[in-house]
Amino acid sequence: MSRWSNSGLDLHLSLPRGPGRRAALEEALREAVAAGRLRAGERLPSTRALASDLGAARGTVAEAYAQLVAEGWLQARQGSGTVVAPVAVAQPRPERVTVSPAEAARFDLLPGRPDVGSFPRNVWLRALRAGLATAPDEIFQREDALGLAVLREALAAYLARARGVRAEPDSVLICGGFRQGLALLCRALVRSGRGRVALEDPTVPHHRDTAEAAGAEVVDIGVDRDGLQVGAVRRSEVDAVVTTPAHQFPIGVTLAPERRAALLAWARETDGLVIEDDYDGEFRYDRQPVGALQALDPEHAVYAGTASKALAPGLRLAWLVLPPSLLTAVRDEKACDDGSNPVHDQLALAEVIRRHDLDRHLRTVRQRYRRRRDRLLAAIAEHAPGVRVSGIAAGLHAVVELPLPGPSEEEVVAAAAERGIAVAGLGTMHHTAEAGRPALVVGYAAPPEHGYAAAIDALAKLLGELTGR
Amino acid sequence: MSRWSNSGLDLHLSLPRGPGRRAALEEALREAVAAGRLRAGERLPSTRALASDLGAARGTVAEAYAQLVAEGWLQARQGSGTVVAPVAVAQPRPERVTVSPAEAARFDLLPGRPDVGSFPRNVWLRALRAGLATAPDEIFQREDALGLAVLREALAAYLARARGVRAEPDSVLICGGFRQGLALLCRALVRSGRGRVALEDPTVPHHRDTAEAAGAEVVDIGVDRDGLQVGAVRRSEVDAVVTTPAHQFPIGVTLAPERRAALLAWARETDGLVIEDDYDGEFRYDRQPVGALQALDPEHAVYAGTASKALAPGLRLAWLVLPPSLLTAVRDEKACDDGSNPVHDQLALAEVIRRHDLDRHLRTVRQRYRRRRDRLLAAIAEHAPGVRVSGIAAGLHAVVELPLPGPSEEEVVAAAAERGIAVAGLGTMHHTAEAGRPALVVGYAAPPEHGYAAAIDALAKLLGELTGR
Repeated sequence: MSRWSNSGLDLHLSLPRGPGRRAALEEALREAVAAGRLRAGERLPSTRALASDLGAARGTVAEAYAQLVAEGWLQARQGSGTVVAPVAVAQPRPERVTVSPAEAARFDLLPGRPDVGSFPRNVWLRALRAGLATAPDEIFQREDALGLAVLREALAAYLARARGVRAEPDSVLICGGFRQGLALLCRALVRSGRGRVALEDPTVPHHRDTAEAAGAEVVDIGVDRDGLQVGAVRRSEVDAVVTTPAHQFPIGVTLAPERRAALLAWARETDGLVIEDDYDGEFRYDRQPVGALQALDPEHAVYAGTASKALAPGLRLAWLVLPPSLLTAVRDEKACDDGSNPVHDQLALAEVIRRHDLDRHLRTVRQRYRRRRDRLLAAIAEHAPGVRVSGIAAGLHAVVELPLPGPSEEEVVAAAAERGIAVAGLGTMHHTAEAGRPALVVGYAAPPEHGYAAAIDALAKLLGELTGR
Repeated sequence: MSRWSNSGLDLHLSLPRGPGRRAALEEALREAVAAGRLRAGERLPSTRALASDLGAARGTVAEAYAQLVAEGWLQARQGSGTVVAPVAVAQPRPERVTVSPAEAARFDLLPGRPDVGSFPRNVWLRALRAGLATAPDEIFQREDALGLAVLREALAAYLARARGVRAEPDSVLICGGFRQGLALLCRALVRSGRGRVALEDPTVPHHRDTAEAAGAEVVDIGVDRDGLQVGAVRRSEVDAVVTTPAHQFPIGVTLAPERRAALLAWARETDGLVIEDDYDGEFRYDRQPVGALQALDPEHAVYAGTASKALAPGLRLAWLVLPPSLLTAVRDEKACDDGSNPVHDQLALAEVIRRHDLDRHLRTVRQRYRRRRDRLLAAIAEHAPGVRVSGIAAGLHAVVELPLPGPSEEEVVAAAAERGIAVAGLGTMHHTAEAGRPALVVGYAAPPEHGYAAAIDALAKLLGELTGR
């Protein structure tokens, strides 16, 4: 440790011997300027004086000064030596503390979240290794904005088999979650002057944020027991409608056959676009899932699937099956946004699908979620018989209808939070003021396998107390 | 194989015995409707008749009809049985054939492309395994839009050490390549009414597409031997400027010290924003790289780094170090776009940095690229002495200035293509009509290690012939 005494500056230098000396001197000078100990305009000692002070070669100091002049920390002034440049002094940042409700809660019953403890880490690693073993180098260069061909091929076959989608590899676009898919679609629609987009009401709140951020004019369309109110779609004169026909989120109903037909008739007659958000189509417990709407009219429908529920939201991996009329526009939006999806996850997912690891994983978690749903129904029947669970036997969430008269949604959500149970009120997913029956949207998938029973029982008992059993 | 003869329809059915019968019948019916062999309104045989034809149980046929009614392929009409619904008939799609110049060429000398053959596949796999071994389950749920904390911590330390960046983990945002970073920044600026953005001219052509797609009003600012013309920035009254101070792309110069100071003075005085695109800052061959401009004024500068040159573009992994004033706005844009970056690559990169695998990889490829640059200079000196290579000894590309009088850029690029050499003309990266000296931008990193010498020699010999040696 040597002290820079003759200049009167508070500059502590710990100069190692050997090749690191110059770098250490530079770093000490940068740090002193950034911290405000050396101020703008202040004159530095001559290279000769500082070298002598530090016991360093004069050339070392001169090189350090030159580097810092090149970087803009110092300025070389003719006749007046080297002075400190005007540099912004570091301001301490406030600590950022964000704790989400799910993190704070003992029992996470928020919807839209799968059991991430079941994510098949080893299967994924094996698939990636297998994919990397045979992949050509070129995949590491910038990819086609549509995504990796090997994944688009695997998905086209899988979607046809599992969801009845009419897809060809060249009509599939890989994107960063359904959210990015929605953003890309909205931007493409807005750019072509067709930016009036209907969303289901209720729906996932952030879908509205995403559509509006993308410039869309959002129109809310109500949902009843038969799903999306297609008559209202027609009256609203929108260009596109985002819908969840297999399992409406959050209400949990299936779009009725006559509504499916009416929706497609609207699309055909008005050249409208149906965006089918098939977020949990793999999870039906009582019968064969209803196949994709898209297959009935691939020219007027976009099929959107995702790995977020089937595997994990952290993958940020989803896919759009696009009509020819939209393919180029959406691909251009992807190219202008992040270019394409990252290659490793695409390689791994392609292998996971091809080796039927995805089917095996889905069978496992489908059984788990079915057990959890059964447990939820049984616990509520036992502890809170005045409460009704609605929606089809599918997906990762159920709607728990609160009896009238009785406590409000807000009261129940607050009481649950006090017991460490995170749960969502249906009202938070409504955009229009229409006051429906109070209800909770209960996600039963998020807790770890060893903890779901306790979480569900805690909620059922609370509901029993609050609804005055 | 059984034939549905009594209905006169061309429906071939291959019905297996056992539980797959119903699914096979459904699939055959879907396929016949989609292909147009069963037409809208056509009446299907009764369940009894078809069951008898197929030797199947009547219940099997009834269930299949019910499923297809639920999905919208068929319609159940009171009194008139089951009819085919109006469904769009599949149109054959045209074959998509796209071959990029790089794929078609024997010698890929396009700029901006690293040697992807050197991507450390095994290092990446090991790092991912190590990251997955200790990562908590929660990382697989939806992440903070900023990115994985473990990667932001590793990057903040690495960037301070390697590039002199002033970063804290909570000021780092992980994004899908610099392109997405630029899109997010432009959207945030546009939304706050500060959407007039300067780009260097020449620059990467797709940066302009991305900025304009994000709604920015793009202003072109010229570049000379001292880098970005900062006086023009000031006169253009822009809100932000995107610049490559360490190694201007494509010209290859460093931003002169007085220009750095003037640029930051402009930012301070006008509350402007400097977006520092440090795309290849790790690659300097003749001296220590110039440290990041951002460190001189972190309140008015965004530092943008990327894994695209250091590792591979296919990773789609980049990072922004943001001033506090922009952090929330850019994070919100990321949240509304794809939510956050995928988790696996972030885990792996964090380990690759922490274990100093990145430093080791960079040392290896830095030596390779330096050798390639030396070879380019030597080959041109030998074969085409009238041609001058300009730009500092850095990065993955060089500017090859064609002599005047002599062939035009277009003539040289076309002659190169005929010999299987893909190379870019500098003119294609200019937005304004200003006719500079004709030049090529030669990327020497893309060819595989065993092929670069042949590629460079082929180009040098061609230049020798064309410039009349």
